[in-house]
Amino acid sequence: MEISPLAPAQFPDLPQIAGATFAAAAAGIKYKGRDDVMLAVLAPGTAIAGVFTRSATRSAPVLDCQAKLGSDPSGRAAFLVNSGNSNAFTGARGTGSVEAVTASVAEVAGVPPQRVFTASTGVIGEPLPHEKITAKIAELHANQSVDGMQAAAKAIMTTDTFAKGAERSVAINGQEVKIAGIAKGSGMIAPDMATMLVYIFTDALIAQDDLQALVSRLNEKTFNCITVDSDTSTSDSLLMAATGASGIDVTGVPAFEAALGDLMRDLAHQVVRDGEGATKFVTVSVQGAQDDQDAHRVALSIANSPLVKTAIAGEDANWGRVVMAVGKSGAVADRDKLSIRFGNITVAENGWRAPDYSEDAASAYMKNQELEIGVDLGLGSGQSTVWTCDLTHGYISINADYRS
Amino acid sequence: MEISPLAPAQFPDLPQIAGATFAAAAAGIKYKGRDDVMLAVLAPGTAIAGVFTRSATRSAPVLDCQAKLGSDPSGRAAFLVNSGNSNAFTGARGTGSVEAVTASVAEVAGVPPQRVFTASTGVIGEPLPHEKITAKIAELHANQSVDGMQAAAKAIMTTDTFAKGAERSVAINGQEVKIAGIAKGSGMIAPDMATMLVYIFTDALIAQDDLQALVSRLNEKTFNCITVDSDTSTSDSLLMAATGASGIDVTGVPAFEAALGDLMRDLAHQVVRDGEGATKFVTVSVQGAQDDQDAHRVALSIANSPLVKTAIAGEDANWGRVVMAVGKSGAVADRDKLSIRFGNITVAENGWRAPDYSEDAASAYMKNQELEIGVDLGLGSGQSTVWTCDLTHGYISINADYRS
Repeated sequence: MEISPLAPAQFPDLPQIAGATFAAAAAGIKYKGRDDVMLAVLAPGTAIAGVFTRSATRSAPVLDCQAKLGSDPSGRAAFLVNSGNSNAFTGARGTGSVEAVTASVAEVAGVPPQRVFTASTGVIGEPLPHEKITAKIAELHANQSVDGMQAAAKAIMTTDTFAKGAERSVAINGQEVKIAGIAKGSGMIAPDMATMLVYIFTDALIAQDDLQALVSRLNEKTFNCITVDSDTSTSDSLLMAATGASGIDVTGVPAFEAALGDLMRDLAHQVVRDGEGATKFVTVSVQGAQDDQDAHRVALSIANSPLVKTAIAGEDANWGRVVMAVGKSGAVADRDKLSIRFGNITVAENGWRAPDYSEDAASAYMKNQELEIGVDLGLGSGQSTVWTCDLTHGYISINADYRS
Repeated sequence: MEISPLAPAQFPDLPQIAGATFAAAAAGIKYKGRDDVMLAVLAPGTAIAGVFTRSATRSAPVLDCQAKLGSDPSGRAAFLVNSGNSNAFTGARGTGSVEAVTASVAEVAGVPPQRVFTASTGVIGEPLPHEKITAKIAELHANQSVDGMQAAAKAIMTTDTFAKGAERSVAINGQEVKIAGIAKGSGMIAPDMATMLVYIFTDALIAQDDLQALVSRLNEKTFNCITVDSDTSTSDSLLMAATGASGIDVTGVPAFEAALGDLMRDLAHQVVRDGEGATKFVTVSVQGAQDDQDAHRVALSIANSPLVKTAIAGEDANWGRVVMAVGKSGAVADRDKLSIRFGNITVAENGWRAPDYSEDAASAYMKNQELEIGVDLGLGSGQSTVWTCDLTHGYISINADYRS
């Protein structure tokens, strides 16, 4: 598959995170000739936080991870992730697979079972051949390396067209804290759905409860603000590990929160940039709503509208479809107070086309690869920003022409 | 444009409705060489009921119609509809256009202004050249005919690929009541959005309030249960006129309600059958939900999911995507109580693939032009049925490749 035209120029140079080691292996679950399992082992005392899909049909590994959040951080911890099979909608057998993999990691790597967090991404409803994974745990354990994070990022790809990574560092009282993360998402493999997995590591020191609160809060403004096609996975998982190895306490430090939020936004954008068939990266900014919730509703309504997304694919400055999406969102809106801009070009205001609107200028703007749709509802101070991509023939080809 | 493969074999033979006359004319608003305005004139005493889009950015004609519902039915009434321009998001000028058209119809046809209901469908945000319409009112008035309903159905098409009509008759105490209706919808013309217009006529006798209650109730189970692409128009309008000319009182008569509901479902299905790019007609039936509202939420989540719709286009028995859509719907669901069938083939139950599931049988079923996806949540007695079509390259071509 060709690399997305929206891909970053290169994978970033990820730093080592003291207290975290990584390994990848080829278990042959579905893909041939590539790694499909990653292991991350975290030093004793590492704080773990996570956020997961809210799907009512979420996968066995997701349910298991949710139950383990908040467990005693005094021992080691581990993340074990496979691609090629999501272990979702696999009944009691799915739970058994999670237990088998967990037991194997716990024994080989000396990790309490309550601190083994697993994830699976790939086909739904097929039994996970977990024996292929447990057969590789010893190899993974032996191959752990502080430099293995990029290999891990590659091992969790399904039909992503590029591996996703990001890093930030923060100076706190003259000392440096490092944050690095990897993600997969928005590639497809029939008969699967887009699934997103995110793993973030830092050597910062922070209590588990504080880390969880921080990650949950930042998640609302980053991963929960992206959409490719409005379809929510059964497997979406984000886990963050703070090893504390730097000895630098970041509790309540704004610079750390800013850096972590920035890194999460970076990874979230990379997922959108690998959206199925995407040719445009679109920022939808809504302000002037009655409250933030209404603003988010409007932003998602625009970002998920097939008519808006196909217009963007066609480089058509079709602001009437934005009006439609605002109208259907369910948010409080007043036609005559609404204004809409494409980039810096005001296209509509006061309930009608802007007086100096130029179709030529708007059409020229739509040819950009990165676009912004701005909406001001003119009612209050609620605001929201959502990121999405366009809807193209590529999306149909990937999802309709694949199997059978 | 080619006629949809899902189109009915022919336009039905619509009956005359005593008390209702119809005319169509070519005003040249946007289309050349075809009619683009229709007029229906209803005899004094006709009861009028209507339902409209709930969009916060609904068009000037919709707002005007909503204000006129319930007005005194003692005089004549009229419906005046144009295609080619939706008069939506046209500010104060849009209201002026509605007033100009209304005044012209009122004067020429002898109808109280409060009983002139207009509608417009087509491009958004362009001023409606209402002079072109008012110039045709005298011609429309002169050409009224009891046989003009099919011509009216053609005049309101935008890029619909076929004209939509339906008729039913009901025997009540040995006397016959007739119902006939026309609709347009789901064709597209860039830069427009799909808009739906529906007009239904009967010679039955029923008070306006009772008719409104009946239409509103039936609408919930018919037009509000179809979706092509989840995008709600700024112009959707349904108007029904009961002339009373038969003298047969249908108030509270179950047979009339059944016939009207059946006709509305027929027209709603025809709109789906003309969905942009549609190659499959899909019934989504949900039962066993906690309540009807939850069932509807699940049905719409499935029917609007781009991943489900592309799988159907690809004739892929991808039930994992149905699991996903149930999970994301927000409805109460229990993975282990959920069962899913394609037609009569149970594909998943008890939290996993059905034990006797056959991929070959399911794949063969998906080749049908008419499909049913059945979901039983196994929790309660809530149920809902929604009708939709697949998502194909045709949809992208119509909406992305059109303009610019």
